[in-house]
Amino acid sequence: MSEKLIELAKRRGIFWPSYEIYGGVAGLYDIGPIGVRIKNKIVELWRKFFVYDNSDFVVEVETPVITPYKVLEASGHVENFTDPIVECTKCHKIYRADHLIEEIAKINVEGLSPSELDRIIREKGIKCPACGGELSEVRLFNLLFSTNIGPYSGNQGFLRPETAQGMFTSFKRVYEAFRQKLPIGIAQVGRVARNEISPRQGLIRMREFTIMELEFFFDPESNVNPPLEKFGNMKLNILRGEDKVKGEKPKEYSIQELLEEKIVLNPWMLYWMATATKFVSALGINSYYFEEKLPHERAHYSKQTFDQIAVIGEEKVEISGHAYRTDYDLSRHMKYSGQDMTIFKKYESPKIIKKKVVVINKDKLNKEDKEFVKNLMTFINSKRPEEIEELINKGEKVDGKNIGDYVKILEREEKVVGEKIIPHVVEPSFGVERCLYLTLLNAYREKDNRIILSLPKYIAPYEVAVFPLLEKEELIKKAKEVYEIVREKFDAIFDDSGSIGKRYARADEIGIPYSITIDPQTLADNTITIRDRDSWQQIRVSINEIISALDRLFKGEEFNKVGKLINNENE
Amino acid sequence: MSEKLIELAKRRGIFWPSYEIYGGVAGLYDIGPIGVRIKNKIVELWRKFFVYDNSDFVVEVETPVITPYKVLEASGHVENFTDPIVECTKCHKIYRADHLIEEIAKINVEGLSPSELDRIIREKGIKCPACGGELSEVRLFNLLFSTNIGPYSGNQGFLRPETAQGMFTSFKRVYEAFRQKLPIGIAQVGRVARNEISPRQGLIRMREFTIMELEFFFDPESNVNPPLEKFGNMKLNILRGEDKVKGEKPKEYSIQELLEEKIVLNPWMLYWMATATKFVSALGINSYYFEEKLPHERAHYSKQTFDQIAVIGEEKVEISGHAYRTDYDLSRHMKYSGQDMTIFKKYESPKIIKKKVVVINKDKLNKEDKEFVKNLMTFINSKRPEEIEELINKGEKVDGKNIGDYVKILEREEKVVGEKIIPHVVEPSFGVERCLYLTLLNAYREKDNRIILSLPKYIAPYEVAVFPLLEKEELIKKAKEVYEIVREKFDAIFDDSGSIGKRYARADEIGIPYSITIDPQTLADNTITIRDRDSWQQIRVSINEIISALDRLFKGEEFNKVGKLINNENE
Repeated sequence: MSEKLIELAKRRGIFWPSYEIYGGVAGLYDIGPIGVRIKNKIVELWRKFFVYDNSDFVVEVETPVITPYKVLEASGHVENFTDPIVECTKCHKIYRADHLIEEIAKINVEGLSPSELDRIIREKGIKCPACGGELSEVRLFNLLFSTNIGPYSGNQGFLRPETAQGMFTSFKRVYEAFRQKLPIGIAQVGRVARNEISPRQGLIRMREFTIMELEFFFDPESNVNPPLEKFGNMKLNILRGEDKVKGEKPKEYSIQELLEEKIVLNPWMLYWMATATKFVSALGINSYYFEEKLPHERAHYSKQTFDQIAVIGEEKVEISGHAYRTDYDLSRHMKYSGQDMTIFKKYESPKIIKKKVVVINKDKLNKEDKEFVKNLMTFINSKRPEEIEELINKGEKVDGKNIGDYVKILEREEKVVGEKIIPHVVEPSFGVERCLYLTLLNAYREKDNRIILSLPKYIAPYEVAVFPLLEKEELIKKAKEVYEIVREKFDAIFDDSGSIGKRYARADEIGIPYSITIDPQTLADNTITIRDRDSWQQIRVSINEIISALDRLFKGEEFNKVGKLINNENE
Repeated sequence: MSEKLIELAKRRGIFWPSYEIYGGVAGLYDIGPIGVRIKNKIVELWRKFFVYDNSDFVVEVETPVITPYKVLEASGHVENFTDPIVECTKCHKIYRADHLIEEIAKINVEGLSPSELDRIIREKGIKCPACGGELSEVRLFNLLFSTNIGPYSGNQGFLRPETAQGMFTSFKRVYEAFRQKLPIGIAQVGRVARNEISPRQGLIRMREFTIMELEFFFDPESNVNPPLEKFGNMKLNILRGEDKVKGEKPKEYSIQELLEEKIVLNPWMLYWMATATKFVSALGINSYYFEEKLPHERAHYSKQTFDQIAVIGEEKVEISGHAYRTDYDLSRHMKYSGQDMTIFKKYESPKIIKKKVVVINKDKLNKEDKEFVKNLMTFINSKRPEEIEELINKGEKVDGKNIGDYVKILEREEKVVGEKIIPHVVEPSFGVERCLYLTLLNAYREKDNRIILSLPKYIAPYEVAVFPLLEKEELIKKAKEVYEIVREKFDAIFDDSGSIGKRYARADEIGIPYSITIDPQTLADNTITIRDRDSWQQIRVSINEIISALDRLFKGEEFNKVGKLINNENE
């Protein structure tokens, strides 16, 4: 099915490999006129679910693709954002070691170390698939695209592999300008680049793509809970890590169960997983599950990760990732930049804290010799009050004298109005082109040897197509009038090239839900036909009622209730 | 004014330098929550003017930032996308040579060669401004950010400096999938990167930014004219190259004059300049002119270039560029890729072409000796029929025999249905962040020591703010009810932190046109106040009429006609 979709996508201007005239570059794709329309609608839909519907605590920012070395060193990407590769010692072709083993030996080696992969290659006797040559040792290849910023050669930078670091480095600025309280979500839609060894065909594993990410900052100790009630009785399909290793299938859980049994570690993570479920459903994809990653499969920053897997026919593809990044990133940036990344958490009411303090009997100490005073002070200064108290209770001595004779531990009360904390973060993350590709794949139908893209109406590239039945001047003129009426309210396209059958086929192939045709009868009685993309049924409607008829159709009213069904005379 | 704007932008989350916690990177900026909202509205406005309003012949695509070496070699950027730099031989600081001369010697040196710049530096005795050291020779620095694609080290690529090459390399694909006829415009909104030597403060000369470009392909011989009538009696301010060298000011021209006097070389270029005028006006910027670039100031691909200069107070800044790229790019890609970039231009009706052909009298020739035949044929084969005819008329001989006795030139008619042509291109190009910055600068006002961003209503970050007058539970509850009503139809924000005066000030500072306040009177008679950002006037309106009142205000109805003016009691 993917091959058919890729062929359709080229032919109809949805997407195609970039720089084709120069032979293309693996992992780079152009999104064509039809693709951009669908893609932009998918991005707006994501914004609706993740930003606008949560606008009381989520905002959107935009940060650069070019990132200084230090930022990705702090984030751990310089060290950890790697894939294992092997090179053929004969033909010098380079492979991703884990993929090569998985393809040839059919075993899952995700997350294994280079030396483990190396051992498997030797054990299984894996050779270069291209020339049969001996393979080199497995080594790690860093997937960051490297570049140089400014005219000084030492100034290394990278293209960002995720937008997240832009939100972490600007967190304080956004926090100050926005609401100055937690929780706060910072969203971003933007380009990222990953120098993949073996990009896959289609829009699945690309070297450059658009990501839609949300870094959601919260206080893990807070009793502000996410509004999970808005999801009603939603159930989520989850494949837990412990079930995965046993080879079991995903199971259905209620939000309540997931919370109470701590299957999902954090309620906010669950909130965004439920939101992701609604978003993916809105793309028309109804079969999915969340797969928990095992510890060695997780990224270096994550305490718990779920991949949302879309199931389309035989294909199972990750459509989103949900990571509990904890305070990892902010802590690292605090360490590497030397800047304070904490926020001040004000308690609801001041807390009275009991604190032990060391009180020295100075009068008595002043009578002792200097050597003893020095030794006693050194002894005290190196210990916490609690330790000293314990030692006094045990009768500990310095220079043969009881400490307790010189030092007392008292408990005092202190009023504290708040404390500095580093917020924790959960991150739902979607690749836009993946969403586009999976949405298309899911919408792909064949009927009587013709192709229909059965896209949800609100993400179709156009809402309505307008055609004259024949290439006659008076029909074309009338059709253009109708087109002008329709485009006032709907995303419409006018098409008068080729036969009407070809135009219907074209509209079906790019997923336009409704086609309006102006025929000789239009000139007689001012009615037009509306054709339904999926059923190919047609109704006849007066031009005066065209907007209200379309309104009703887009609101989901049944096709044959909006107008009188007629024979598919033009098909 | 710029400094005040930059300060406001940081404080209110509009924009700020990226990676501040690491000391920042010159030329990189984050766009904050308020900035992204305005920016996205500016992009949509551009799409309206350049794409949607021209949807019969303009489509939008998206191509990668990462670009293979060959593409930018073909486009001429590897050779020509350079700036002159000098390095201090003592402290090794690097300067952009032309800027340094312009700053110190106050002369315009745009477009001069490195050796000319070098001569001026020696003549004027210009030294390193930082340490007084001797400056090195001027050399060219290429502004392309370089990177490496894939795991093979030889695979150089760049970050694109313009989106244009993505449209040129995919031109045939779009042409085939879309309408298969000219004219056709391919638009793109996307990130580009330029490794500037000396980025300017603010969003003017950035190292990475978003560009909105349109490559408009047309047949220069076609009689399909742009619909210039839609601009009515619009006049454009133009500073012609010839006037510029004389130090004259821009003059006002009608579209008719610009066309007839060929001041703008191509009518489609004029069409997009007029469209740019409408777009820039819609941003609220009403003072501008188009400056024609002199030959040595133009980019290497351009036959004619106009920069649209926005005039805001004392500042004159380029807001868009308009280049007539001719068939330069497609021709170069045709040469470098070896692929056919022509399109077949079908004539409206087949042309009958008269063609001269050479007819040989074989009977007579067969009787001559072989040596003569050979010499005659060599003579004929090296010349065009027209040349041979002329020579026959002059009585030219071969081996002493009259050519005319053996050869005749006849005229025949041939039917031709079309020809292959390489389309020409005009390109209007806008930097989004520049538009954002200049829009903000233009909207910046001060009144009674307070700041107002007097943005056009449709690009304000929010349309309406909703406040409870006091932090009382029943007012907050009522205000939230009103907020839910308002946000059904309008882009609204709720704010209940700080005093009402502070909240009004905050709303003014980010340019929210209307603020609604819920006060004790609301609880008594179900009315609220609406406050106007610019005049600070207030009217009182019933909650039941709130949507229609806002509708009327956004349609431009006068403030005091929509409701009864009241005293600014809360200011």
